[in-house]
Order: sequence, then structure tokens, then C-alpha cells
Amino acid sequence: MLHHFSDLMNMQHILIIGAGRSSTVLINYLKAYASREGVYLTVADTDVNLAQAKAGEGSNKIKAMAIDIFDEAQLTAAVKGADVVISMVPASFHLPVAKACLAHQKHMISASYVSPEVRELNGEAQKKGVLILKECGLDPGLDHMTAMEVINRIRKEGGELLSFKSFTGGLVAPESDNNPWNYKFSWNPRNVVLAGQGTAQYIRHGQYKYIPYHKLFTRTEPIEVDGMGEFEGYANRDSLSYRQVYGIDNIPTLLRGTIRRKGYSRAWNVFVQLGMTDDTYQLEGVSKMTKRDFVNAFLPYNESASVEEKLCTYTGIEREGEEFKKIAWLGMFDEEPLHMQKATPAQVMQKILEEKWQLGPEDKDMIVMQHKFEYQLKGENREIVATLVSKGDDPQQTAMAKTVGLPLGIAAKLLLEGKITRTGVCVPITADIYEPILEELKELGIYMEEKEDTLA
Amino acid sequence: MLHHFSDLMNMQHILIIGAGRSSTVLINYLKAYASREGVYLTVADTDVNLAQAKAGEGSNKIKAMAIDIFDEAQLTAAVKGADVVISMVPASFHLPVAKACLAHQKHMISASYVSPEVRELNGEAQKKGVLILKECGLDPGLDHMTAMEVINRIRKEGGELLSFKSFTGGLVAPESDNNPWNYKFSWNPRNVVLAGQGTAQYIRHGQYKYIPYHKLFTRTEPIEVDGMGEFEGYANRDSLSYRQVYGIDNIPTLLRGTIRRKGYSRAWNVFVQLGMTDDTYQLEGVSKMTKRDFVNAFLPYNESASVEEKLCTYTGIEREGEEFKKIAWLGMFDEEPLHMQKATPAQVMQKILEEKWQLGPEDKDMIVMQHKFEYQLKGENREIVATLVSKGDDPQQTAMAKTVGLPLGIAAKLLLEGKITRTGVCVPITADIYEPILEELKELGIYMEEKEDTLA
Repeated sequence: MLHHFSDLMNMQHILIIGAGRSSTVLINYLKAYASREGVYLTVADTDVNLAQAKAGEGSNKIKAMAIDIFDEAQLTAAVKGADVVISMVPASFHLPVAKACLAHQKHMISASYVSPEVRELNGEAQKKGVLILKECGLDPGLDHMTAMEVINRIRKEGGELLSFKSFTGGLVAPESDNNPWNYKFSWNPRNVVLAGQGTAQYIRHGQYKYIPYHKLFTRTEPIEVDGMGEFEGYANRDSLSYRQVYGIDNIPTLLRGTIRRKGYSRAWNVFVQLGMTDDTYQLEGVSKMTKRDFVNAFLPYNESASVEEKLCTYTGIEREGEEFKKIAWLGMFDEEPLHMQKATPAQVMQKILEEKWQLGPEDKDMIVMQHKFEYQLKGENREIVATLVSKGDDPQQTAMAKTVGLPLGIAAKLLLEGKITRTGVCVPITADIYEPILEELKELGIYMEEKEDTLA
Repeated sequence: MLHHFSDLMNMQHILIIGAGRSSTVLINYLKAYASREGVYLTVADTDVNLAQAKAGEGSNKIKAMAIDIFDEAQLTAAVKGADVVISMVPASFHLPVAKACLAHQKHMISASYVSPEVRELNGEAQKKGVLILKECGLDPGLDHMTAMEVINRIRKEGGELLSFKSFTGGLVAPESDNNPWNYKFSWNPRNVVLAGQGTAQYIRHGQYKYIPYHKLFTRTEPIEVDGMGEFEGYANRDSLSYRQVYGIDNIPTLLRGTIRRKGYSRAWNVFVQLGMTDDTYQLEGVSKMTKRDFVNAFLPYNESASVEEKLCTYTGIEREGEEFKKIAWLGMFDEEPLHMQKATPAQVMQKILEEKWQLGPEDKDMIVMQHKFEYQLKGENREIVATLVSKGDDPQQTAMAKTVGLPLGIAAKLLLEGKITRTGVCVPITADIYEPILEELKELGIYMEEKEDTLA
């Protein structure tokens, strides 16, 4: 079916595996490209109706197909007919796709992290002249590209990097921001509930620092974006490994983190303190629980105090304060049944939040990414603050889907055009990859604005 | 070698596998029993010198042997010659011993928890007339026996149990208590460092309650022991499963916990808040760290404040307070190298504590166990408080080794005497097992003192 396109007609062929929400902008970008150029596009998904809907009608260059990536024959047939495969399957399912691509000497691109298993394919990929380009979405992806662009520039000028702090967040655009958390989901809600679990590790002025989960949301840094107001950032789990990835092994300060609107973390910290984001055990008696019971299960027993009073005393927040207002707005104190049969605390939180933090039909999301570099150049201490703000069009064409999908789509296009020639298992940290991608992204309105300053 | 004892001479034979510190009192008890009665005793250990030292000289009824429990031939030969096998190997190694016992129709006794794998052997054990008696030490062990003795008595009287709280702790005896923590190690230090990790789950007045680790040491209950002063208890991880074990499924309040001297938990909580008991990741740069650096790695960066100042501000303790005094006494602020090459935070803590919380050559440890029962009898609310205090003789004959070892030794003796006849995989919750054991323990000075009261 597939291979006659490229074999018989000698036209190039892109295969996208996975047509979910995060593929929308990617698919649209490559549909436009395919229609414009002599390129075929196939959209494959376990759900063929979804693939069909995303592929659309009206072009004989664009096809939809059903695929089960664990059926080797199906995967092989699909991969064989393609020149570039973009894998949008969940992170843990990338290995079979990578292996099939390697077996049939096809390039592969994805937005997910390089796993140790995929990294091991590097030698074979180089030998076969295949590129396996990973971490080519937003975070990881655009963060690498924009960081390396500045780091390499500073290096070229002869500067010495002293500090690199980088924060990224998927938020709601100001014009759609109408809740006290100043937050709505534009990405996997489960990941938002579990965010930060583990221990954040980073380095500051040469000192290793460790923040356990239960302290994470109390140790935020203020972040300012011109014209956009105040944000805050909490540390991601693993900043230290980026020293090696970016080739800045001896940098005294390195911190990566997640952006939220100012005040989010103090309120979220209340849930963390109570233990309501725990995903390691099943709650007892969930089927009979209301939201109020759920909160009460984490508070000390005291028959003479209300749940509200106990919460304030236990977590040290004020009844009239912003944190209490945010929590009450979620309905946490309501005598409303959870309507769940079996759940971990984190699963209950996710259900409650999904009802309240959903992007409405008119809502726009927003991506904010900010890098702050401090460096010494000719005896002078200097700073570069690079900030990217990208807004979505609607709940489908989100900023999240754009900033994840466009780097992938552009990389696929550049590969077919022969403008990316690197082979092996790579992430976009080299100029030959990030320069042309950043260039086209800029044309599409996605770019960093830079401010330079001399420091005292 | 072994089997000629029992086969040829028709004398009974006890095999102890594992001659470590916690076996000392058990071995001595059974040596005395063997010398007195027509019984042979073999002490087996991977370290034959240790086995030899514990077995001692001078009796042809008592032997030492080397054993590798993962060598099936060795294990089979040893088990075959015995009538009762007492397994003192680490908890996770009990399964091969249990299987060998079952294969050769020998009884087995141990102090460790029933694993699901061992539980599955119940049917076969019953069919073969073999007793696999688990959880027959202190905690689990003596706690089961003493609790069930009272629970069954209340039941027999027609009382309705409303609340059961039970706390156990291995501590230092008052006459040897000379440090501000009022604590020394009498048991596995690693377990003390990691104690409480996970989420404590219990039920109070019919409400399920969950305490995450980072709140556990702030939610202690006061415990009083007549003439011994003030203690405190923090909740153990899993109280709820004891409802089924003890047959008290509908009890409104059930809490099990660990006893420490009053004030221990508030100070220990400082380490928990900082994340210093985490065992999930390796610290960077351990080889160059001092104790002071170790503490500083968990504190926010602030070049104008000392480690001491930052610690007090961050955790909310007072510089002149008891918590600070305890922490400083451990040397946590000293510029003293850790002398470690690679370690998790928990491993560093363990090393620091092992130097400071060691039982001295003249020191005595102390076990405290307290059960508090509330029940309704003929319309009256009543309370029984049962308390056991047991002191060690010296750092070898510890209260811990006594209260773990004697129930095991007595159970072995009762089995050989035909006074325990139950078969299958059991824990000591039935009167036929706990009554004769508690009776002999009382003669040996280990018993609960009870106080009864009418409640308002």
C-alpha cells in the first residue's frame, strides 16, 4: 500500500505515527507542505477514525491508516514505505519504532527524551546513515535549540558562562485567564498533578542543592516577562545532567524549572503538604467520599473544628488569603461525591482539576520560556535574558501543539530537503540542526526576544 | 552429619539458621534447654566462626555449622536432620528455607513478616502436618500475642471494642540515657533512618486518615508509662491491615505506631524536612563533603547567612531550642569530612548517627510496648492500658534480642514438647500459641502490666 508511493513514483514520503491532540499542528503543517511540494504524507493511529479526521479529505497525497505499533508486520510495512517517520506515540513506546526505522534505514524524529535503549542505537544509526532525532519538540526541544544558540554565541565571543537558568511553562493566555489559579490544562493533566515528585537537584555558585518534593513549591524564583506581568518558577528534578548535554560541565550555576503564574505554587503547596498528590496507594472508601471527605482524610482528627479551620491551622494558610480562595474555588470543601470507585489521591486530584482547569471552547493557551544567562566577557559581567511567548489560536491549535509540533515538522521537511545531514541518535544541540529550525520558527512567529545588560 | 542425631538416637533436634546479633538470646535460651533436655541444637551461619562462637564449647549436644542457604544441597542436608528450624536470615531470604522445611516435613519458626509467597504454602503445610509460624518475635510477634490476649478477653466478656492503639519502640534504658535525643541504636540503624517513609494509613472514629512522610513526625501522640516518664508515638505505615489479622474489621479507631522519647520526633522532623533521609539518589561530590556541607546542600543558597541561621529560618526551629541542641550534638555543623566516597543522603545520615547513637559497653537498651484499648461493656465505656517494659543486660543481651529471641525459642520448645499442635502458615494470634508462650515469658520477667479504668 504505502511503498508504491515513494518506490514507483519516486516521491518522498513522511509517516506520522500518533494522531492525538499534540499532533494537530504538526499534521496541519505537513499537510500544507505535502500539498505544496512533491511529498506524500501518511497519518497513522491505532484509532483509524482519528487518523482520518486529522488527515482530512481532498488530497491524494495525504492518507490515513490504522496501525498497531506492537504488530511488527504492520509497523514494518508502514515504516518501509516512508522516508521520514515522526513518532508521536507515548514516550515508553518509542523503542520499537526506532528499531523498525533502523532496520529499514529510515530517519526518525520525535519529541520525547532519549532513553538509554535508544541511545545505544547510535553506532548502528551512524553506520547506516540514519538520523534518529529525539527531544525535538518544546521541552525538550525548543529549550535545547534556543539555549545552545546563545551558549554557542557567548562561547564564540570568548565569554565565560557563569550561570544559566531556564524556565518553561504551558499556561493560559491572559485573555482567557479567568480563574484564581491563573492556570488551565494545555497538556497531560496527570503530569501536572505529579509534577516535581522526586528530588530537585541543581547547582548554585558551585554548591550542589537538593530540594525534596515537600519543599519544592516553597522555593520558587520570581520570573518577569515584559508586558506579561509576574510569574514564578519551581526547579525541575534534574538540572545537573544538562551540564553534559550542553557542554557546560563546569558552570557554577545551573537551574532548570517550570513556570507558573505568581501565587500558584504557594496554593499548590497546600495539596503537597496534605499528601493529596500521592500516586502510590489506593484510598479506602473512595466510592462514598465527597470532595470535602477527601480533604478531611489528610487532616488531623478534631471533632470541634471544621475542615476549613483544620486545613488553615495545619498548613498555616489564612482563611481570607489567596491560597484558601484558590482551594475553595476548586470546590474542595463541597459535599459533592467524587463519583469514583477506586483511586489514588493523585487520581482524585486529577479528576477534580480536569473539571475546573479545562480550556473553554474560546480559550487560548500560552507558552512562556525564559533563559537567563550570566557570563563574563573581557572582564565585564553581562546578562542575556531571552524570552519566548507563544499563544494558541484555540483549544485545538494550542501554543503547546504549535511549539511541540512545528519543530518536528520543520525537522522532517529539512531532512527531506537534504538540509539536515547529520546521522546517529541526536538531540537538537548542534547549529546544523537548530539554526534552520529556529529560522523557520521565527518566520512562523515563534522566537526568543533578547535583552542584554551589563551587570554590576 | 546432622541426621544421625535424631535418626539414630531418636533425640529431637533444633536448627537455628543465622547467628547474628539478634540471635544471641535465642541461642542461649535453646542451649540451656538442649543441655537440660534430650534435645540437640545446631547453630548454622554463613560465617562458621560466628556460629562456633555462639554455639560455644563443652556440650556434645550443641554444634555449629557453616551454611549457604542458596546452596540447595547444603540447605536440604541441614533441614533434613532437624525437627524444628528457626530462620533468622534476613526477611527476604525466608522463602527457600520455608520450602526446604515443607519438602522435608519440618516445622519452621521465624520473626519476620509473612510474605505473600510464604502465605501460599499454607495449604501444603496443613496437608503435610507442618507448622510455619511467622511473626513470632517482638514486633511483629509479642505485639500480636499481647493484643490478642486482651482482645479475646474483652470479646469473651461481651465487650465491644471501640479503639485500639498500640505503640512499640526499642530505646535506651534510663540509666544509660546520656544524650539529648534520649535514643541509641538497639536495632538495624538503616531501618531507623528510613522509618516512616511512605504514607501512614489508619482509621479514627470511622474516618480514614493518611499522613505523608513529611508530616509524620509532627503528628505524634503523647504516651505515658508509669515511673518511666514521657514518650511519644508516630504512626506506622500500615495500621489498617491489622483489622483483618486481629478479626476486628469494624473497629472505629485503630492505630499502630513507634515509640520514641518525648521530643525526638520534633528534632528528627528537621532532617525529614530538609530531605536528609532520602535513599533514592546519590549525592554529588560526597568525597569532598563535610558534615556541614551535607546540611548546607539541603538549605537555600544565601551567602550572607550561616548554615545554622539558614537551618533555623528554613525549618522554623529556634537557635536556643531543644531541636537545635539535638542536631548540633550530632556534629551536623562540624567541618568534619564525611569520609565517604559514594552515598545517598540516608547513607550519610546513618554513618553520622552510628558514631553517636551506639550503645556503649556498659549500656542497657529498653523495649517499651503499650496497648490502649477502649471498649463498651454493659453500657459502660472502659479502658485497658497494657504496658510492657523490658531492659537489656548489656549491649549483647539486649532487651531487643530478648524480646525477639525468647518468643521464638519458647515456640520451638513448645513444638518439640507437643504443646503447640497447629499446622499451616500461622502468626501467633490464637490462644493455643500465645497462651503458653506468654506464660513462660512472664516467668522470664517479660509481661504486660495492665491498668483498667472506667471512662466518662
